[in-house]
Amino acid sequence: MTTVQDPKSITFADVKRAARNIASFAHRTPVLTCETLNEMTGHQLFFKCENFQKTGAFKFRGAINAISNLAPEQRKQGVVTHSSGNHAQALARAASLFEIPSYIVMPSSAPTVKKNAVICYGGKVTECEPNLDARLSTSAQVQQETGATMVPPFNHPDVIAGQGTCTLEFLQQVPHLDLIVAPIGGGGLISGTCVAAKAIARRIKVFAAEPAGADDAFQSKKAGKLIPQRNPQTIADGLLTSMGKLTWPYVRDVVQRVILVSEEEIVTSMKLFLERTKVLIEPSAAVAVAAAIGKDMLKPQSPRNIGVIISGGNVDLDNLPW
Amino acid sequence: MTTVQDPKSITFADVKRAARNIASFAHRTPVLTCETLNEMTGHQLFFKCENFQKTGAFKFRGAINAISNLAPEQRKQGVVTHSSGNHAQALARAASLFEIPSYIVMPSSAPTVKKNAVICYGGKVTECEPNLDARLSTSAQVQQETGATMVPPFNHPDVIAGQGTCTLEFLQQVPHLDLIVAPIGGGGLISGTCVAAKAIARRIKVFAAEPAGADDAFQSKKAGKLIPQRNPQTIADGLLTSMGKLTWPYVRDVVQRVILVSEEEIVTSMKLFLERTKVLIEPSAAVAVAAAIGKDMLKPQSPRNIGVIISGGNVDLDNLPW
Repeated sequence: MTTVQDPKSITFADVKRAARNIASFAHRTPVLTCETLNEMTGHQLFFKCENFQKTGAFKFRGAINAISNLAPEQRKQGVVTHSSGNHAQALARAASLFEIPSYIVMPSSAPTVKKNAVICYGGKVTECEPNLDARLSTSAQVQQETGATMVPPFNHPDVIAGQGTCTLEFLQQVPHLDLIVAPIGGGGLISGTCVAAKAIARRIKVFAAEPAGADDAFQSKKAGKLIPQRNPQTIADGLLTSMGKLTWPYVRDVVQRVILVSEEEIVTSMKLFLERTKVLIEPSAAVAVAAAIGKDMLKPQSPRNIGVIISGGNVDLDNLPW
Repeated sequence: MTTVQDPKSITFADVKRAARNIASFAHRTPVLTCETLNEMTGHQLFFKCENFQKTGAFKFRGAINAISNLAPEQRKQGVVTHSSGNHAQALARAASLFEIPSYIVMPSSAPTVKKNAVICYGGKVTECEPNLDARLSTSAQVQQETGATMVPPFNHPDVIAGQGTCTLEFLQQVPHLDLIVAPIGGGGLISGTCVAAKAIARRIKVFAAEPAGADDAFQSKKAGKLIPQRNPQTIADGLLTSMGKLTWPYVRDVVQRVILVSEEEIVTSMKLFLERTKVLIEPSAAVAVAAAIGKDMLKPQSPRNIGVIISGGNVDLDNLPW
């Protein structure tokens, strides 16, 4: 029995509102199945392909929802964030669809290809020193100069609600899921997943998949308190951050298990998935696949219907990890 | 005006019969679109993803149809072919679904991974010297010993009709296509495409895409007679063969143009497609993508609706060509 120990930041009504907000902007991504992976595992696996989402990741949902919820006068001042990953691209693209400016603070160490992707989507890039203090101070400065609204990558109700639309869709597409596995980094995706899944059917379990080399969610859940991530070591570059104050309560109270996977499992799963399904997933997404097909997943008496959220597919094809 | 200069081997009725034959075995593969590629080209591109077909290629359609059309007493003797490529896997898998034996003659030089794939699908592999004479004599011998029926990779009416079901489906999914581009090797896919497309809407053009390093269709069409392929040099290993007597008339009389693409264009298209759509295609499929997005494709006054058949997605991930 899951007990909710304090009020959570969003409700299912927020997720449904987010679904209406994003409907004309985001793709309704397909659900993929693979006979070989089902035979391998004895489960019925369903993959919700957010790598086919605009900008190649689920992050677009939260970004669009956050912008949708701004008042018109606020919106026209634009949005700002600091990120070198999928959130940066998502926010730049979402802003361009609303024809408003986006200001993206990126560490000077970010790969040129990532900067160019943000610029291509219409984002204005400001470089800063590659540390958290510089990111925060630079984005605060940009915010002050431009009047833009900060849209953080995960620790924001509108972002969490937007990410929750992924599971709302997933359960419309495959209503009989018993379990949903999603990767955890900052926790925006898993929190939205918890809200949507539990509201739709309380019996649905939510598992978080985390790299053993960046196991703050696992350690926090074990300790019963939020322990920040220190010195993460993983190829899953979308899962390096610590959880936030808004996302941790969902992990603590609603997520049933945090499954850890090794770096080898991540790479093997990424390659196996590409080979068998012909679909490219990024290492952070492969973390959830590795958890779903891994030895640590309980072997049930009868095959279970397991939903896996494929969080993104942005991969540097010149540096594949095998 | 296309004049049909001699009777062709199959009719649209054969394709429709094939569609009924394969319906419970083959996947109805999805059609994919990509905004970035549309913006790049000024066309509306639609990709029919046979890389998601069973065994990872369109070949499964022809194999299932050929087996379906055998008389029961003939069928139980099994089927035989010589191939080291997608047809071998397709026939082995199709035979296993009918619970009949399949005998696959493969050159001793074929990669172990390909032999294992055939064996995994239930095929019985016989090795032979790596030349055409040995392939033909060995498969004749197997045929004699087992009583199995030969199912050739392309030069057979049931195989051509089976491949035609791909375009029948494609035009149900996207009825307003103006043009369909498919790769050409032996010509089974393009012949089936011609039959289905022209029967459904005479206005639809069919273009064949061919590697410049294996340009027998281009040369044959130019000369007006069937010129066999000699010494092909291309990464597109599904497109090395010459056309057959049954497929050449379709190329001669119905295919409007044969578009040649360079090796560099093939590799660039394969990588671009993976990067932008997150979907893995094999080099032979990338030939059609390269033709569709290449400079040689006429730039129309207004964007045209171009269908591209993605023939397969079987790629050795340890030897990517970039």
